[in-house]
Amino acid sequence: MPQAFTTRRFVEFVDTDMAGIVHFSAFFRYMEAAEHELLRSLGLSVHTKLSDDLIISFPRVSATCDYTSPARCEDWLDIAVTVERLGTKSITYGFAFTRSGEEIATGKMTAVCCHLVPGAPPKSIPLPAEIAMPLQRFIN
Amino acid sequence: MPQAFTTRRFVEFVDTDMAGIVHFSAFFRYMEAAEHELLRSLGLSVHTKLSDDLIISFPRVSATCDYTSPARCEDWLDIAVTVERLGTKSITYGFAFTRSGEEIATGKMTAVCCHLVPGAPPKSIPLPAEIAMPLQRFIN
Amino acid sequence: MPQAFTTRRFVEFVDTDMAGIVHFSAFFRYMEAAEHELLRSLGLSVHTKLSDDLIISFPRVSATCDYTSPARCEDWLDIAVTVERLGTKSITYGFAFTRSGEEIATGKMTAVCCHLVPGAPPKSIPLPAEIAMPLQRFIN
Amino acid sequence: MPQAFTTRRFVEFVDTDMAGIVHFSAFFRYMEAAEHELLRSLGLSVHTKLSDDLIISFPRVSATCDYTSPARCEDWLDIAVTVERLGTKSITYGFAFTRSGEEIATGKMTAVCCHLVPGAPPKSIPLPAEIAMPLQRFIN
Repeated sequence: MPQAFTTRRFVEFVDTDMAGIVHFSAFFRYMEAAEHELLRSLGLSVHTKLSDDLIISFPRVSATCDYTSPARCEDWLDIAVTVERLGTKSITYGFAFTRSGEEIATGKMTAVCCHLVPGAPPKSIPLPAEIAMPLQRFIN
Repeated sequence: MPQAFTTRRFVEFVDTDMAGIVHFSAFFRYMEAAEHELLRSLGLSVHTKLSDDLIISFPRVSATCDYTSPARCEDWLDIAVTVERLGTKSITYGFAFTRSGEEIATGKMTAVCCHLVPGAPPKSIPLPAEIAMPLQRFIN
Repeated sequence: MPQAFTTRRFVEFVDTDMAGIVHFSAFFRYMEAAEHELLRSLGLSVHTKLSDDLIISFPRVSATCDYTSPARCEDWLDIAVTVERLGTKSITYGFAFTRSGEEIATGKMTAVCCHLVPGAPPKSIPLPAEIAMPLQRFIN
Repeated sequence: MPQAFTTRRFVEFVDTDMAGIVHFSAFFRYMEAAEHELLRSLGLSVHTKLSDDLIISFPRVSATCDYTSPARCEDWLDIAVTVERLGTKSITYGFAFTRSGEEIATGKMTAVCCHLVPGAPPKSIPLPAEIAMPLQRFIN
């Protein structure tokens, strides 16, 4: 049975806007931070330097968020992260934000595994097994 | 024939990340700024105070972005904004980001017309005609 | 003997810029978050609603930061917060950022205690005793 | 007689916070954007790639801002940039923010000219003449 990676996020004052609620763009930063925490929990990183000239990174090709209820300053948000799809070169994560059980927002993000070489565009590569393998238990 | 509202956005240093490209979350701020510019061009605002206790605002219920090619510091991005759907209470905008004609990203955002009263959750209301009417010429 | 309030901050990817280090403006957000955490530890808040129409908030009148050594993605920063000055209406906080004992940055921030009433400029008020008293033990 | 470089900044919704005013940290982003615009007006850049492995950049060693009056959503801020001090390796800029002539904030920022080499800390270098010379007319 699939298993979500869970973490929490505290809403800071700077994340709010003059409407008195969390700005919608903050959720994309929250998603990315949760994704990175998941990767770190597996001993991985979002930006792995293999050498000075070769970095594995995960540029995003798609991000989406649906908002159910506003989040507010000093809220604690619970975040459940799952893997919606594990492609050959990409990972699609799912995110469920709740506050004391109440649904706040849900999102998805697709990141592509890339080699970064200074001065060139990112080049997609197959997901290394040491990244793909440990993510499988979060497949939804 | 439908018509897009067009504007431009200059990519600032602070919008980049250590991968050397614009952080994906910046595009959501760019979208919102373009939306607000469209509203202002029509004599509207994104946060209209009818009285001290009654504000019309547009909380987002959905936002999505697909990234085709990375944007970089000091790029000028062209943004074309269209109205993808004009609902009874909501507006769905479409955004196309290009750089010198090259596709960079496309996005969508759905905002709901709401009354904001201090101390209460946002309450959706039908789009006033003075907002819905001038948006019709941007319907895609 | 004075006592600092201590907390930690994890550096997220989005806080970095294309120079590969934390953007200098992020430290001001880190300072504010640490200040708010100090206030919460005392049972206070940075934005206290006394009623729908009367809020006590702390607009900043001054903020400064000196940078000694760059911070990087996934760093854990230790933050020591002290009270540099407790005025009649204002609080000046001091912040020392270190990483494993190495100095990263130091900052100061002066916030003024204000009444916020919708539709009017913030109005400074004397610091209520229930705020000033518990802060005294952090005076540097 | 000294001369300021002048530019303008439009305050976006996302720059506001739940107190209904521009978040204090936004002014540091505004300052940097104005500094970069000044550099571009001189044919310079804030991040000049001499080769794939050698970049001239300007990490900040100090930044400060004093706030006189709150800025609000959709304000146009006028920014006057001067050079407060031109050191051997560093530039101290001064910034004055006004809105229709009313003082909003003033700031200072000191940036150090550095070589960035991947995998090493920034290394300060003397300001190249082609940067120092054109800045002299903005010395306050």
